[in-house]
Amino acid sequence: MDSSVKEFTQWDGFEGRIWKEEINTRDFIQKNYQPYEGDQSFLADPTEATNKLWGRLSELQKEERAKGGVLDMDTHIVSGITAHKPGYISEELKDLEQVVGLQTDKPLKRAFMPFGGINMAEQACTTNGYEPDSKLHEIFTKYCRTHNQGVFDAYTPEMKKARHNKIITGLPDTYGRGRIVGDYRRVALYGIDFLMEKKKEDFANCGNGTMTDDIIRQREEISRQYQALGEMKEMAAAYGYDISQPAKNAKEAVQWLYFGYLAAIKTQNGAAMSVGRISTFLDIYIERDLKNGTLTEIEAQELIDHLVMKFRMVKFARIPSYNQLFSGDPVWATLEVGGMGMDGRSMVTKNDFRFLHTLENMGPSPEPNLTVLYSSSLPEHFKDYAADISIRTSSIQYENDDVMKPIWGDDYSICCCVSATQTGKEMQFFGARANLAKCLLYAINGGIDLKSREQVGPDYKPITSEYLDYDEVIKKYDQMMDWLAGLYVNTLNLIQYMHDKYYYEAAEMALIDTDIRRTFATGIAGFSHVVDSLSAIKYAKVKTIRDESGLVVDYETEGNFPRYGNDDDRADDIAVWLLKTFLDKLKKQHTYRDSELTTSILTITSNVVYGKATGSMPDGRKAGEPLAPGANPSYGAEQNGLLASLNSVAKLPYEWALDGISNTQTMNPDALGHSEQERIDNLVQIMDGYFDQGAHHLNVNVFGREKLIDAMEHPEKEEYANFTIRVSGYAVKFIDLTREQQMDVLARTCHTRV
Amino acid sequence: MDSSVKEFTQWDGFEGRIWKEEINTRDFIQKNYQPYEGDQSFLADPTEATNKLWGRLSELQKEERAKGGVLDMDTHIVSGITAHKPGYISEELKDLEQVVGLQTDKPLKRAFMPFGGINMAEQACTTNGYEPDSKLHEIFTKYCRTHNQGVFDAYTPEMKKARHNKIITGLPDTYGRGRIVGDYRRVALYGIDFLMEKKKEDFANCGNGTMTDDIIRQREEISRQYQALGEMKEMAAAYGYDISQPAKNAKEAVQWLYFGYLAAIKTQNGAAMSVGRISTFLDIYIERDLKNGTLTEIEAQELIDHLVMKFRMVKFARIPSYNQLFSGDPVWATLEVGGMGMDGRSMVTKNDFRFLHTLENMGPSPEPNLTVLYSSSLPEHFKDYAADISIRTSSIQYENDDVMKPIWGDDYSICCCVSATQTGKEMQFFGARANLAKCLLYAINGGIDLKSREQVGPDYKPITSEYLDYDEVIKKYDQMMDWLAGLYVNTLNLIQYMHDKYYYEAAEMALIDTDIRRTFATGIAGFSHVVDSLSAIKYAKVKTIRDESGLVVDYETEGNFPRYGNDDDRADDIAVWLLKTFLDKLKKQHTYRDSELTTSILTITSNVVYGKATGSMPDGRKAGEPLAPGANPSYGAEQNGLLASLNSVAKLPYEWALDGISNTQTMNPDALGHSEQERIDNLVQIMDGYFDQGAHHLNVNVFGREKLIDAMEHPEKEEYANFTIRVSGYAVKFIDLTREQQMDVLARTCHTRV
Repeated sequence: MDSSVKEFTQWDGFEGRIWKEEINTRDFIQKNYQPYEGDQSFLADPTEATNKLWGRLSELQKEERAKGGVLDMDTHIVSGITAHKPGYISEELKDLEQVVGLQTDKPLKRAFMPFGGINMAEQACTTNGYEPDSKLHEIFTKYCRTHNQGVFDAYTPEMKKARHNKIITGLPDTYGRGRIVGDYRRVALYGIDFLMEKKKEDFANCGNGTMTDDIIRQREEISRQYQALGEMKEMAAAYGYDISQPAKNAKEAVQWLYFGYLAAIKTQNGAAMSVGRISTFLDIYIERDLKNGTLTEIEAQELIDHLVMKFRMVKFARIPSYNQLFSGDPVWATLEVGGMGMDGRSMVTKNDFRFLHTLENMGPSPEPNLTVLYSSSLPEHFKDYAADISIRTSSIQYENDDVMKPIWGDDYSICCCVSATQTGKEMQFFGARANLAKCLLYAINGGIDLKSREQVGPDYKPITSEYLDYDEVIKKYDQMMDWLAGLYVNTLNLIQYMHDKYYYEAAEMALIDTDIRRTFATGIAGFSHVVDSLSAIKYAKVKTIRDESGLVVDYETEGNFPRYGNDDDRADDIAVWLLKTFLDKLKKQHTYRDSELTTSILTITSNVVYGKATGSMPDGRKAGEPLAPGANPSYGAEQNGLLASLNSVAKLPYEWALDGISNTQTMNPDALGHSEQERIDNLVQIMDGYFDQGAHHLNVNVFGREKLIDAMEHPEKEEYANFTIRVSGYAVKFIDLTREQQMDVLARTCHTRV
Repeated sequence: MDSSVKEFTQWDGFEGRIWKEEINTRDFIQKNYQPYEGDQSFLADPTEATNKLWGRLSELQKEERAKGGVLDMDTHIVSGITAHKPGYISEELKDLEQVVGLQTDKPLKRAFMPFGGINMAEQACTTNGYEPDSKLHEIFTKYCRTHNQGVFDAYTPEMKKARHNKIITGLPDTYGRGRIVGDYRRVALYGIDFLMEKKKEDFANCGNGTMTDDIIRQREEISRQYQALGEMKEMAAAYGYDISQPAKNAKEAVQWLYFGYLAAIKTQNGAAMSVGRISTFLDIYIERDLKNGTLTEIEAQELIDHLVMKFRMVKFARIPSYNQLFSGDPVWATLEVGGMGMDGRSMVTKNDFRFLHTLENMGPSPEPNLTVLYSSSLPEHFKDYAADISIRTSSIQYENDDVMKPIWGDDYSICCCVSATQTGKEMQFFGARANLAKCLLYAINGGIDLKSREQVGPDYKPITSEYLDYDEVIKKYDQMMDWLAGLYVNTLNLIQYMHDKYYYEAAEMALIDTDIRRTFATGIAGFSHVVDSLSAIKYAKVKTIRDESGLVVDYETEGNFPRYGNDDDRADDIAVWLLKTFLDKLKKQHTYRDSELTTSILTITSNVVYGKATGSMPDGRKAGEPLAPGANPSYGAEQNGLLASLNSVAKLPYEWALDGISNTQTMNPDALGHSEQERIDNLVQIMDGYFDQGAHHLNVNVFGREKLIDAMEHPEKEEYANFTIRVSGYAVKFIDLTREQQMDVLARTCHTRV
């Protein structure tokens, strides 16, 4: 036998060879997982331990909310893998915790993370009533440079202006860029020592001796990954675990994997800190233990419940402007279930049921951000169960495995709200959004921002006619998008460079291959409003309303025009054109580390803030009103029911928006059917039809407007404590949204007919 | 008049225009300086203030020596431009100081500089009996990465091995790389505000918007330069000076300029922290004041004396291994006088006399490292005066302006011991040395190091014959040099990258143009021994002596062979071949930031340490004995007198060693002549002849062996307190050398005949 094939007794009973010769979690999964075609009847109720721990955590969450959203903050310790002593949900109950490990020494206590930017870290403290440590202030202003300092030192005035005027917005320049998913399963499968050995080999093989900047940078990165792995062992040891060797059973596998994730969230505060595709992997360990008789289903469910409980506890210290963008304290601890293998087998296992079942055992919850990798070929029982849970909790999102698999293979994870990334093979440079709605207004007004009255874009000749001419608008818009695409990508280049320099994700990258694919994610905001506005200009008569300075501040549209969201090709063709046109302009640009540029149409809850900064549009949306989220049709535009709306979105080719096309829909329970089974059947049928057309994503909310109104008026009601809804790309407790955002949710179309 | 032309009243009386439109100190000098052809009779004696201050400083220096070489160390403050409160030579005498500013708050107190490497900074403290601050340890290990950490994280095992075995040696990987000369004159001529304004313009013009790594890096660098300029103002303000505007008289010019230099030595601890070419520049201010009647010659000399006193006080905290390499606490505060303009005018001014005169007014001193830019066309009076001072103090070095000017123009500075750099237009990546003597032994022994017995070089087939065959040796040597050149340049690439990343010279670069030329300096050690060994193999019979393992550990050479240093082309041709061959191999390599590779033949005092690590050579040098320094012929090789020796060295083309060719010679006073005038005349004649042949450099020592022996035996004698000698590339107080190095100096040829 080849000496490079490792053998560990912890692997007894596992099949396959390639994954023993190289780090290859996918190969391990494919060789060992057992598809499950059955129904949910095997699932176990929560144990007493689960109930006690969840009860305690629920109390803490209540305290947290009572304190304005933050329970406790660390102000003296700089967060790091080994910075804090062990912490537990509760000292009295700690023996009940099947999975241990907290970000700090106390539950829901937020860590101090200054490497992204000391100002942000301090502002997060002061705005929550905590006094940041002046010693740390000195260190991170006098001695240690931060990501934020690097970025702002290098920004051009134009970039600052574009950022300030929110035509480019949500840039990760004051905190972690996130969106990097370590393959945390590797800790369980291989143990840290093996991973360190492999990184050592990679270090030896990094470059042929010629020390170019790229090679030097990579060598230093590998060293830091190696050091991070060592620290993970140290952190685990403090909790009483030796993770140097592979996990020997399901309990250890869950714990080892979680330690890997814990290292990530102790060192990085990215907007999205996803967990990844761990369900099928862990099922293999559980199946082996079940077969061995060393684990019962009740214990298996308890392990998953406790793991999920930990994901529900992830917290970061944020600043008010961040919370406005991403309301409700999300962390995008995204976790996938479902999906199909390249060989055509379903990858659904019993564990996928267990993860969904946590929403029953411990009630609805925004985190982890549970994502079903959907295909109409998934086992019927699983589709039904997911639909059932969706209807009852509105906590699940669906993504089309059939369109993602050809691009990302069958072991991708969702690294943020909806964006796929090959697990352990890839990193993504997260890149926020360009506001194309604002860009259209700049095109009309010659680069002047209506809100600040600053010349933000180039001072091209504005449109001077009373009525807008489609060809003239398109020509000017094309020119203005050229400018925006260049500025946007180059702003991101600078951010990604500085992030690598000052806030490198050593812990996450330690669990990713050394030679990686890098994608460069960009995004579009204001999509539907541009589409409808262009449609109005083309198919109706749009008259400009100017203020005394001659700027167009509003529009009067005479006549009807087709709107995106009604399965009308006249509007939907404009949507496809817009996506492709902007993507082509983005792709022309140089990208950091020769990464592959992708784009997305997703805005999270930031659509509200973006809308505030955006003037009136020819489609009838007034200045300051929220934009439609993601790729959603505009509020009120959808006139032909849910299916027509879904058909419009489904026309956007995923290939041109590989970072994702987010669509959030709310259906009245009655619209879906009158019995539980009818609703399930209808929802499955709707999704089969939607995804079979090649659509990418769907957030499913099932509730009526009355419930939202009641929850706004009576947030104190026990039933609303965990009332979770899907917003663009994540789930959130409705009562944690700002009033403004609650109003926005209420304004969205709630389909009362299919 | 063009609005871009600045006008300051401080410039009244100055001619020219280009230097007002752009930062161009050279243009200012050329348009305004007054060449001086007269003799030294105008010079003034030291003032009472000078005597008092120098007396106090001499006491401090004695205390320092009594304490083992270090008077005081800072352990709590991280050095920075504004880190320390103002300090003075003496609180009682502070009103006497015409030029103020210390590196720390007390004279000769060494600052704590951790950015190059915390271990080095701490070791410097502990080996001198100081306890480093544990808080700073935590900061610079847990939070702030350092240059040293970056380098060692990225080094290959091969690099570490080559470094450990000293075939590549003296690498600046634990402290500042030095050798960057800010154009400190700019502070005086323009004032900080104007410089900041110009850097702001450069920032705006940096790149066309496409953010490549290079552009991003440069943008961040400009920002940091800008910040450093702001801090310089702050530092000066603490001393009571507003340097935002140009200096209005000579006193301010001296002070402003010194503040610029002070910012550099507060932030960087490079081996060489040169002052640059300031003499002619300052003369312009002095001449204006003399003409105005606002300054007397006595006051002018006092200003220069006090400025020089400050340069004599520059200190850095060093570790023992550093002190072994560069013995006697040098800082290479190199400062030039002399030189010719491109227009054929001598650039010698009265100020050049004043700087040399400091060696009379305050006695000999190693620092500043006074360098005469020599040409036989320099005014005779000046040449005579310099020779006179040389003979009496052995504190001056000479460099050939005629060979440097075509390459570097007429405003270059010497940035280390002998290396030229265009002032304000260039930075140099300093790169230590490759030991070519060791490389020859590796070629013979198949890459095995005789001292460690490790396989350091590639395991090429060793030489197995009893007698060495010239062609075989050359072939193997060529191959081994290929390996060494590649490894060496790539090790440096890595070091320079990390230095820019973690220890960027913001203060120095703030006083240099934004768009700069970058040279990449390499160096050769063991030069003469390789030349003589190859000559022995070629012209005599060299028998190998092997140990039990078969390694060649010594040589028996039968017959005579020509040696380098006797004006014998047979040996000297090998020298030229060796230089060119190795240079070509170096030039093939990729260099960091596309810098221009140069090489040097200079070793400072490191020849002793290098020799310790180098086995016996075919030229008869035994294992462990010092190598000859720089480009010097080997000890005892010179058989034909001083002129023959000089002729050999002069054959090395400067064009192939643009980083410098260092030659150190000691002449017995009697060999030079029997009267003072005869000695002066002879020395000038020797130098005219030497430099007219195109030789690059000469360290001139004039004393006999008896004096050295007496100083070794009676270091306590008052006359030896400041007894200064020139070693390879710098001057040092003889009693500050280690015993070993004193013995080495003693072993060198002291020419008793010309």
